[in-house]
Formats: sequence, structure tokens, C-alpha cells
Amino acid sequence: MINGEKTTGQALRWGMVGGGRTGQVGYKHRTGAQRDGTYQLLAGAFDLDAEQGRDFGRNLGVAEERCYATYQELIASESQRADGVEVVSVATPNFSHYEITRALLQAGIHVVCEKPLFFTVAECVEIKKLAEEKGLIVGVTYGFTGHPLVHQMAAMVAKGMLGDIRLIDLQYTHGFNAGDDSDASEAVKWRTNPKTSGPTFVLGDIGTHLYYLSEVVLPELKIEKLLCDRKSFIASREPLEDHATVLMHYHNGARGRLWVTSVNAGNMGSQRYRFVGSKASVEWSDAHPDQLSYEIQGEPIRILHHGMPYLEAESLALDRMGALHTEGLGDSWANIYLWIAQAIRAQQRADQVFLAGHHCPGIDAGTEGVRWLENCVRSADADASWVEYT
Amino acid sequence: MINGEKTTGQALRWGMVGGGRTGQVGYKHRTGAQRDGTYQLLAGAFDLDAEQGRDFGRNLGVAEERCYATYQELIASESQRADGVEVVSVATPNFSHYEITRALLQAGIHVVCEKPLFFTVAECVEIKKLAEEKGLIVGVTYGFTGHPLVHQMAAMVAKGMLGDIRLIDLQYTHGFNAGDDSDASEAVKWRTNPKTSGPTFVLGDIGTHLYYLSEVVLPELKIEKLLCDRKSFIASREPLEDHATVLMHYHNGARGRLWVTSVNAGNMGSQRYRFVGSKASVEWSDAHPDQLSYEIQGEPIRILHHGMPYLEAESLALDRMGALHTEGLGDSWANIYLWIAQAIRAQQRADQVFLAGHHCPGIDAGTEGVRWLENCVRSADADASWVEYT
Amino acid sequence: MINGEKTTGQALRWGMVGGGRTGQVGYKHRTGAQRDGTYQLLAGAFDLDAEQGRDFGRNLGVAEERCYATYQELIASESQRADGVEVVSVATPNFSHYEITRALLQAGIHVVCEKPLFFTVAECVEIKKLAEEKGLIVGVTYGFTGHPLVHQMAAMVAKGMLGDIRLIDLQYTHGFNAGDDSDASEAVKWRTNPKTSGPTFVLGDIGTHLYYLSEVVLPELKIEKLLCDRKSFIASREPLEDHATVLMHYHNGARGRLWVTSVNAGNMGSQRYRFVGSKASVEWSDAHPDQLSYEIQGEPIRILHHGMPYLEAESLALDRMGALHTEGLGDSWANIYLWIAQAIRAQQRADQVFLAGHHCPGIDAGTEGVRWLENCVRSADADASWVEYT
Amino acid sequence: MINGEKTTGQALRWGMVGGGRTGQVGYKHRTGAQRDGTYQLLAGAFDLDAEQGRDFGRNLGVAEERCYATYQELIASESQRADGVEVVSVATPNFSHYEITRALLQAGIHVVCEKPLFFTVAECVEIKKLAEEKGLIVGVTYGFTGHPLVHQMAAMVAKGMLGDIRLIDLQYTHGFNAGDDSDASEAVKWRTNPKTSGPTFVLGDIGTHLYYLSEVVLPELKIEKLLCDRKSFIASREPLEDHATVLMHYHNGARGRLWVTSVNAGNMGSQRYRFVGSKASVEWSDAHPDQLSYEIQGEPIRILHHGMPYLEAESLALDRMGALHTEGLGDSWANIYLWIAQAIRAQQRADQVFLAGHHCPGIDAGTEGVRWLENCVRSADADASWVEYT
Repeated sequence: MINGEKTTGQALRWGMVGGGRTGQVGYKHRTGAQRDGTYQLLAGAFDLDAEQGRDFGRNLGVAEERCYATYQELIASESQRADGVEVVSVATPNFSHYEITRALLQAGIHVVCEKPLFFTVAECVEIKKLAEEKGLIVGVTYGFTGHPLVHQMAAMVAKGMLGDIRLIDLQYTHGFNAGDDSDASEAVKWRTNPKTSGPTFVLGDIGTHLYYLSEVVLPELKIEKLLCDRKSFIASREPLEDHATVLMHYHNGARGRLWVTSVNAGNMGSQRYRFVGSKASVEWSDAHPDQLSYEIQGEPIRILHHGMPYLEAESLALDRMGALHTEGLGDSWANIYLWIAQAIRAQQRADQVFLAGHHCPGIDAGTEGVRWLENCVRSADADASWVEYT
Repeated sequence: MINGEKTTGQALRWGMVGGGRTGQVGYKHRTGAQRDGTYQLLAGAFDLDAEQGRDFGRNLGVAEERCYATYQELIASESQRADGVEVVSVATPNFSHYEITRALLQAGIHVVCEKPLFFTVAECVEIKKLAEEKGLIVGVTYGFTGHPLVHQMAAMVAKGMLGDIRLIDLQYTHGFNAGDDSDASEAVKWRTNPKTSGPTFVLGDIGTHLYYLSEVVLPELKIEKLLCDRKSFIASREPLEDHATVLMHYHNGARGRLWVTSVNAGNMGSQRYRFVGSKASVEWSDAHPDQLSYEIQGEPIRILHHGMPYLEAESLALDRMGALHTEGLGDSWANIYLWIAQAIRAQQRADQVFLAGHHCPGIDAGTEGVRWLENCVRSADADASWVEYT
Repeated sequence: MINGEKTTGQALRWGMVGGGRTGQVGYKHRTGAQRDGTYQLLAGAFDLDAEQGRDFGRNLGVAEERCYATYQELIASESQRADGVEVVSVATPNFSHYEITRALLQAGIHVVCEKPLFFTVAECVEIKKLAEEKGLIVGVTYGFTGHPLVHQMAAMVAKGMLGDIRLIDLQYTHGFNAGDDSDASEAVKWRTNPKTSGPTFVLGDIGTHLYYLSEVVLPELKIEKLLCDRKSFIASREPLEDHATVLMHYHNGARGRLWVTSVNAGNMGSQRYRFVGSKASVEWSDAHPDQLSYEIQGEPIRILHHGMPYLEAESLALDRMGALHTEGLGDSWANIYLWIAQAIRAQQRADQVFLAGHHCPGIDAGTEGVRWLENCVRSADADASWVEYT
Repeated sequence: MINGEKTTGQALRWGMVGGGRTGQVGYKHRTGAQRDGTYQLLAGAFDLDAEQGRDFGRNLGVAEERCYATYQELIASESQRADGVEVVSVATPNFSHYEITRALLQAGIHVVCEKPLFFTVAECVEIKKLAEEKGLIVGVTYGFTGHPLVHQMAAMVAKGMLGDIRLIDLQYTHGFNAGDDSDASEAVKWRTNPKTSGPTFVLGDIGTHLYYLSEVVLPELKIEKLLCDRKSFIASREPLEDHATVLMHYHNGARGRLWVTSVNAGNMGSQRYRFVGSKASVEWSDAHPDQLSYEIQGEPIRILHHGMPYLEAESLALDRMGALHTEGLGDSWANIYLWIAQAIRAQQRADQVFLAGHHCPGIDAGTEGVRWLENCVRSADADASWVEYT
């Protein structure tokens, strides 16, 4: 149970690139990082509009001289300070993740980066090499995997409680782009422009969450081949997709189905994860993250509740509010940021033993997400045909 | 609102082939047909074991001499009687649907047949021709489409309340075959034997329900191409499938996803239908048939309730219990059987005008189900590749 | 499992008083009784408007000469026939239950009567005496207690699975009278007129369902004292109530809470039953009758599903559709009517052993409902103070 | 929408009394207060065991010399510092709320106190006078009322969307004390000892949440009379109660029902609030705080979702995560603590205009909770009879 006691000592000196006033994701980073005083926000280049960014930073309590116009300025200045930031979060449109991350690492600063990490696996490989050379952490904010019951599922799979895994059904399908938003602001439209969003829209924006969470629950499973059928129902979004179905064949014979869309009119964005084994199934949704359905064929369905003593230790260790009270996405982000802080502190003290056993969405998790996207696009571009997973 | 007043005059003289004591489907036929005295059960060949069948028939109130050992006997004898049965329901394993239906029609008896109707479209075409020549009805028991809210969805689509249809998501996924049942009785195993079940297991057994209901809601939509990926997780069921995913491209650009499985451990069999349009979505499940979710993007989700005056007339007309009380699958079957009775009476009085405007799952509905199965199998057999819909 | 095989031999010759075209309850009687051919509708005095009643009866398939203008005519005529009705259902406004029931019994006809049975316990006692003298059955249509999972709860309580019973929470709260209906037709208004409805409105109309079902689940519990606070939010209904709360102290120290109202705006009428014991609780709602929540403190909540082999035999025996498919209120009524038919047949063959062990809502169940109402009214009339239960 | 921009300037210098390692409530205070850097934890007397408290404080990042053994030490020392704490939260057992609050106010320190505030209304009145004399704020952590949809309900009521309020149904019923815990640690047992808990157990511990939230939604409603029936199912808790039902008559004729218990075996603690008006009802549960059911009689039920533009401005202003993502209890506490911080800053600048229009659970809210408890106990002690509300 997490009660706010620090496991990482002094708060990490922290900065942000992006995450300004008009976006929503910035608050998730801040509320996740600053929970329990694990990070202290000291610097930022929050906005492309330098004045806006400075004003916003001031309101966040950042000293005026540490509100920068650009990430380059931030790096140049903070690198010179004895009390410069140790870690910077990158909450910008996808296209700039790679260049900002590279610059930060080159300056010796740890990075927390939004997903999808970069545009290509090649970029991921290069950044991994750079991070290793520099001895730095790159954390990736797959923000839903901090929920305790995600790790309950993983522990149950690991203990064999589901038997052999047969079916994986994944869904993240909201309706917030059901209308034609070709006249919307750039803050909205960057996601549907290949130059700023990369080779995908919803596959990268929300599909990577599904894929990563399935990896956390099923670390042993490997995709052998995959088929991706994607489409844009709003013409201005082409060639990117606002709907995609992905079928996956796994090496053990399991079958996967994944659905992402942002034109699912009327739906507020519920994710749904169902893992079916030869003995039992589990099902979880981020919309009601405190409950997990555990279903053994021929027995009553069991509804597991967060924070209860009957859960696996891995799940209980992540609980913040206790069984009587609800957790939200902010609690999940707090766990993600805590794991990254623990990784940074371990890296700083060169504690490879700790790092080897430490759960944390890092550069490899980010890379696998990009690899999955590359395979999806390759299939989609080949008339939605099956492709070997590479 | 249906209150038991007869719309079909005198009860139809009715017989059954199959549907004996050990199966469950027989009771659904009887409870559907005999509701409101629309049909009177007078004859049957209920069981392959003639003595069992006779004993069972007696318990159902059928006169001993009209409990037959075989369907051939039934036809031979009933055809001779002035008060012989007018209509017979076929509730036998799939392989015998065709021969029994043909024999009944040749003897001038209307037919109600289980789905999937026959093994091939060619058989369907032949039977349709025969039925037309004889002036007889072939009804097909797609038992879920009698629920009032199914017709609410259809009416809403027809009125344009969903806008252009974009996405269709269909699911019927239970877990009752999660275990290896290769040692089970023939009453269970016939479904997984191609000789008795035909070219499919779950696609035909439960997938045809999904497909037909989607046709009822979306009569205008036509499939252009389709991909079916199927698999059996229990070896003894091969080459038939206990899991399949079907992707469909419709002529209007809509995309469909369909999932059937009987190894979904722990699930009691919930069907889920979601139809997404450019303006709104509707979602319905047979597990809670009294409720329909109507979701306009940007507005609160609306939960429509059966029997309420705000529903479309098409839906209200089918209600039996009133808004205050629940309906079950038996009420849906009662509507199906009522429609078939109305069709038979109209056919008997040669009322083509009535028939032209009458909703009833008949030979065409049965044929389209078989056509869809043929396309699924063709795709599956071609390594789950896309096939043009023919 | 019920599959339509007759357990009561030849169909009972059956008539109805009331239950005409404009009411809704008549259909519930007919669909419950005629399921499985247990009863055959042969006579009726369906409507105060004799012509309407005759027209309706004809449409139900009743011979014209057996569609009567009044119940007196029905009794006089049917008593003379060799094939006269054996049992008559009374589906009229409350005020006439007593006189019609008495007249039927005096004529040697079994009775099925709506609830609340009569206006006073004294009337119940008198009728019980008359029925015993005549050797006749009086069944009472507490229509919700035919659901299989109600008997699952009873069996679990009997086996001690809940431990000592501590808390009983009962609720039947719909909104269909939220508006002022003082201008409505007599078909609606009779329920709020003491002359036609008796000493209560919602307490009798819906509260007796809650009370009787709790008796079925907890046959051992006896009320020691009770407090009833009632009110009418629509003036024209006074002195009858459209809202009432009843608190109950049981002899074993348990505490009960019961809420009935028909001004619960927007609610379609969900009943909720929760029984809390020292070890575990169960909760069931008629809105989703196929599921039962079984909750052991400190363990995952279990969702029990109708028709599954893990249920108690008492519950499985009542199942009609099987676990894969839904049941509705009609299936529950069918079980109620079946129990009454079994009681009538046993009475006809003087099988006291069978009757002693037979579950069936009879004259005693009806009496206890009226007794509970009398106590409620006595408390309500004493400024909602506690009264000893008598 | 709250995005972390400071509305209260510099973080408040903050201390805690109680809320140590073994309790759960301390973390709720810290995660609520420290969100967005509104408060900075600088001092504490966290535990009766001074060494434990010091160790814990260190782990929270509090300087060693500001981890005190007692609240008296904390006050004495912090009062002397130029940078001493401005506000202290009291998260101790109920019996010490009054003396600690009084001592803090006398030392010129603002207070945030747990509920139930004090043992008697007289104490509340005295403290209110003291706080006014000193110009200090006393905030009360009714932690559930920070959820945005609570304020949606209040806004809807204020706009007349429900019509005249008729029925109020409140429930907070968990099972965590279903077992006999007379052997438990003092950390558990203090709640059932009148010396430490005061005149109530569950009425004060959880019932005050229900009552206060109903006041937020229905500020105009006043109780005229009340009846409270309470009981302890575990003997060692007597004379305090682990179950109580309260009936309330309001001045406008509305009727209220409230249920609290901690022996509701198997229930994880769901609160349920239903407010029924002459036009419509609303229903909300803390277990799924992102959804609100809005039910107009005769129309489809509407499910309102947090963060959506169709909500009232009062609700949207409190949203932190946006419609696509879930909020939890921590987000609600963050709003509560933010309101208190805003009140303190306004008090510091003597901004009575701001304070007059500012929503914040303060001394009056705390007093009304205690008043309600006094009335409940008075009724319960008078054999659960009706008492005039005083």
C-alpha cells in the first residue's frame, strides 16, 4: 500500500517540455509526478507561444527565469545550473519526441516521454543506445498500467490461474472524433497529420495503450503474424485512420483481436481487456478500474475489488486509497511516475540488480509499441493482409 | 402490445420432428409456439429412440398414435388424416434439415426449421423453388429477433437517427465448450462433426444469429468482401471451429467485426450488438433484452426501456409484459412463431399483399445465413484471406 | 428443469373473471396458465362491459356461449355443465376478490386470486375455513416468486450459508404514478380509491410482493414490531399512500427496511431484495432475474447465474430456458400457475402428503400479506409509531 | 477545468496532527492537500508513538526538528517560527478534535478537521465563536463532496430540473465490520468506544457524509422531525451502533430515508444517493463517481458523464481528468483541500465578499453534522421514536 512515504529520497528536480495550458495531458503528468512529492517542477518550456508558456509556468509555481521559450533554451540553461533539472517530461506532439529526447539525453538529462514513443523502431534503437551510453533512463507514460488490478491480472496469469492463454480481446473505442473536425485548431488537428502524428492516428494514440497493457499481463506471448484493417471515416484525416481492427496470431496458438476507433459515437472512451484461458478468463475496463471480473467456466463469476486482502501482493502493493474508496487515472499515473523515479534513482546509484527486477515502462516498452505500429501499418498498406511480425 | 388475442384464428395443427427430452431447444419451440394458443401440438417424431419419443410425446399431451418413430412415418400418416398437421417444426441436427424439410414440403406441409437452415446455398435455392411451387411457408427460428428492442433499433436506423452507418460490432461468445468434450454424448458432439453439423460449428450455431439480427436492423447494407479467421482450441473439433473472427466491408464503406466462440471461459453467452452511425450509436445485448443504449455523441447516453410510450410503434407492437416487467427469450420466440403463423394463414388464403409487407424470418433469411457461412468458410480455407462476397 | 412435460395430466378446465382487454394483468395470467398446456381457457367474464368481454373472449378462443356478462352468470352456467371449469382466476379490482372467491368456492370451483387477497384478515380466515370445508384450493398470484433464483436464496438461507440473518432491505419503487392522474380512467383510478382498492395503494399493490418474497426466502423469521410511515404526494389519492417506508424488528433481532412508492420519477419499477447475514449477503432484483449476487465478507463477490449446475437443486428444478438464455416474468408466472395446478390435482386426489410438502402460494400466503397490511395501516394511522405485530 | 495552475499563490505552510503510518485517512489528506502544490507539508505530530511519528515524518520529507511528539509541542514550536505552519489538519480519533482544534485556533493557526467534527453542538458553537474572533478558517473534510457530479446534482436542483423534491434516499453500507473485532487493535477499536468515538459509531463515521452531501445538493431543505432506529449486531460495540436507519420529514413535505451500517457483509462500501422530484430523479454513487443517472418520468434514462460540455458550469469547473478518463476519491479530496486553501487565503486578505460566495465545508457544515447526530441519538435513545428536529 502506498501511503506517501518517499521511496526515492529527495524529490527529483523536474522539468517539462510541452504540456501547456490548452492541452489536457500536461495535467496528467503533473498530477502523477507531484503526488507524494516525488518530483519537484522547477523548469519548463510549456508552450510554442513563449509568453503563454511563461505565464502558465508562473502559475504552476515555476520561477520566471526557468520558464523557457524552447526546449533548446531549457537544455542549454539547465545544463549550466548546479541545481538544474535531473529529468524532463516530453508532452509534445509525436513528431518532436525523438529530437527532444535525443537532445535531453545528450545533455545528460533523464527523459519521460509520451507514447507513441517515436516514428520508427530505428529511432528507438538509436535512442536506446544513446541512453545506455549516457547511463540515463527513458520512461514512457503508458498511463493506464499503474492501476493495481492490471498487475492482479498479470500475477494471475503468471500463477497459471487462467491456464493456457487462448483469446485476447482488446478495445479502446471512443467517439470524440465522430464529427468532421477539419476546421479545428492545430491543438486538435496535429493528431491526424502524418507530419506531426506519424504513420498512425488512433493506432498510435490509443492502440499502443491496449498493446502495452496486454504485454504487461502476458509478457510471454509473442505475435507471429498480424493483420490490420484501417480506415478513416472523415476524409480530411486520410491517410491516417480513425478506425482500425487488428487480428493477431501468437506463437502459442492464441488469437488476438484489437479494436481502436475515435468515431464510436456516444462512447466516452471505455477500454476493455479480456484475456481468456483454458481454465478461466479475466476482464477489466479502465472505466471502472477498481473491479476485475474473474470467470472460471462452470463457477459463479467473481468480482475482485481493489485493495482487498485476497488479491495478489503485486496488486496490493500499488493500492493508494484502500478498498473502501475509489481510485482514478491520476492514481495510476502516480504509480507510473513513481516507478520511473525509482528507476532514475537506481540508475544514479548504478544499482543494476534493482533495475533488473524493477517493473517500469522504459525504452524497451516504448520500442515494442512502435514495432507493433510498424507491423500494423505494413499490413494495412498491403490491403489489410497478413504479415509476419518482424 | 400483444395480449393473447388471436390474430390467426383457429390454432394451427402442429407437429415436431426432433426436440425430444434430452435437448433443450425443443422446449423453446414449444413455449414459443403454444403461447396464446397459436399452435396446437398434435403429432411428433420427437426422438431417434422411438420408445423414448413416444413416452415424451405422451407427456406433452400428444395422442399415442400420433407419436411416430420417424419423420417419414409422421408424414405418411399425417398426410392421410383430414385433421393432419398443417405445419411441422424441424429441431434436429443440421444435417437432416434439408431432407426433412424437402419431404414435408413435398407432402404439402408448412415447415419451421432450425438454423443454420441447410449445408449449402444450392440446397436453399432448391427448397425455395419447391416451397413456391407448393405454396408453402418455410420459417426459420432465428429466436432472438422477436425481442421488441431489436425492432426499435431497426426503426431508428430506418428513420436516420443514427446517420450513416459506419461500424457494426457483433459478438456471441460463451464458454460452455471451454473444456475437452470429445468423450461427451452424441447429443453434444454432433455439433462438432462436419457430417452432422455441416461446414461450421460456432459460425453456424451462434454466428448466424448475429448475422441475421444485423440484417434485420440494417436491411440496406450489403457485404462486399469478408475475411474469416477460425480455429479450434480443442483438437477433436477440427476441422470445425470453436472460435472465429469475421471482418466485413460493406458496400457503403461501413466496417463490420463479428466474434463467435464457445471457449470464452466463464461467459454465460452474452450477445452484444453495437451499430455506430455518423450521428449516434445503439447497443443491445440479449442478456438484458429490456434495455437499449442510444448514444448521441456529445449528449448523455439514453437508456431506452421496453414497453415505454416513447418507443417506435414497431417495437411497442411486439411488447407482451409492459414496461414494468421483464421479458425473456421465450417472449421473443413467441413473436417469431406468431409471425410464422401469420405468414402461413396468409399463404393459405393466398394473401400476397399481406405477405409482401410482413416481417417474418423465412426461406430468404435462412438462405442468407447459409450464404454468409459459405463465404466465411471460403475465406477461412484460403488462409483467412479476404474474399469477394458472392 | 422444466421442459413442458405435463406433471398434472389433462389440462385443467379454466375460466377467468376480469383480466379483460384494457388491463395488463390478464395477459400475465393467461401466459402463465397456458404455458405447457397446464390450463385450458374455456370460460370467462372478462369485462364489466359484457359486449366487450364477449368480443375479447372470442378472440381468446373461448366459445361464445361461455363468455359471460358477470361472474354470477359464469358460476351459474358452468356449475351446470359436465365439462364446466374446475378453476377460475380472479383478476378484478381488489374490492371484489372476497365476494367472487367466496361464490366460486361455494360452487365447488378452485380459485386463483390476485393480491392483495382481501381487505381484512377476518375475510381471509373465513375463506380459508370455507375452502377447507369444500376441499378446494385458493392460489394467490404473487407472480415474482416463480423465478428460480428466489428459491436459490431460500435454499442458501436454509443451509446456513448466510449465517444468522441480520438485515433485510426490500424495495419496489417505480415512477408510473409520478404525475397527477386524478383525471385518469377508472381502470387506473380504482387503485387509489379505498372503496375499490382497500385500505392501501402501493403497500398492497406492490409491497405485498416484497413481503411475500421475503417470507419465501426467510420462512423462519417473524416480525415482532413494525413502523409504517406513509404519504400521498398527489392529494387526490389520500387517504391512500403513493409512498411508504416500513421498518421491521424480527424476533431474532434482525432489522428490516421496506420501501414502496409509485412516484419514484424515472424508475421503471425495479425491485431490490437484499438479505444480510453474519457470514454473507445475497441480493436479487426482478429487473435482472437471471443473476444473483452472493457476497461473503472478505471474498470476491460471486455472481450466480440461473440454470448453472452449481446452483441448489430447488433452483435448477424451476429453470425453463437454460443458462445460455434469459428468463422473464412470464416464466415466473408459469411456475406459479404450475404449482397451483399441482396443488389442485393433489387436492382432487386427496393427496395430503403431497400437499404438505408442496410449495405453492395459497390461502395462508394471501392471509399473511393482508395481516402485514393491517399492521402497516395500524402503525401509519398512529402517527407512524411502532406497533406490536398481531 | 482544474489543470494545476495555482489559484492560491504560494503553497500554504501546512502541518498535520495524526494521520500516521498505520491509519489510512492520513494519505487522503496528504494526496488531497499536496495536489497542485497548494499545501506544503512542513511539520507534524503524526503518531502517539513519538519515535514512530518522527520516522514517518522523515519519510514524508518533513525536517526532523519539525516532527513533534505531541500536538502541544507542534503548536508551541511552530508558533515561534517566522516560517511556522499556517494551517494544520487534524486526523485523530474523534474525541481529540475539539481540544486540538481549540488549541490551534488559540495559537492563530487555521484548521482542517476530520468529521464528525466534535461530540456536541455546544462545542461547535464555541469553536465557531473562537474562529471568528481569531479570523481563522475551520475546514471539515467531508471528502466525497469534491466530486464534480455532486455539484451537477446541486445545480440541477437549483434550476428546478427535478421539480419539487419529494423523496431522498441515502445509503452508506459496508461490511468491513461484519465480524467480531473486539480483539482488534486500538487503531480499529477506538471507533466503537464512546470515549474515543463519541455518541455514535456508523452514524458519525459514515452517516455524516450522507447527510452533508444531501445538504450540498438540497440546501433549502430543512428537517422537521426525525426517527432513528439503531442497533449493534456485535455486542462489544454497544451502546454504539453498527446499523442505523433514519427517517426524516422535511419542512416541504419531502420524506427522507437514510441507512448506514458496517455489517453489510460482502459490500465494499458503496454509497447511494437518490433525489426524487415531481419531474425527475437523479441518482449517484461514489463507487462510480464519473456517472450520474438523470431520470425524467416517461423519458429514457440519461447517463450523464463527468467532464462533458453538456454539464452545468459548476460541475465542469471541478473536473480534473477530462471526460475520457476516470476520477477517483483523491481528485475529490483535492477539490476539498483547494476550497479550504482558497478560504484561508481570502480570510488572510480579509476578503469577505469572496468568502460569502465561496463553497467550502466549514465550521457550519461541521456543526450541522453534529446537530444531526444529536437528533439521531435523541430519537434512538427514546426507543426509536419521532423527535422534533432541534
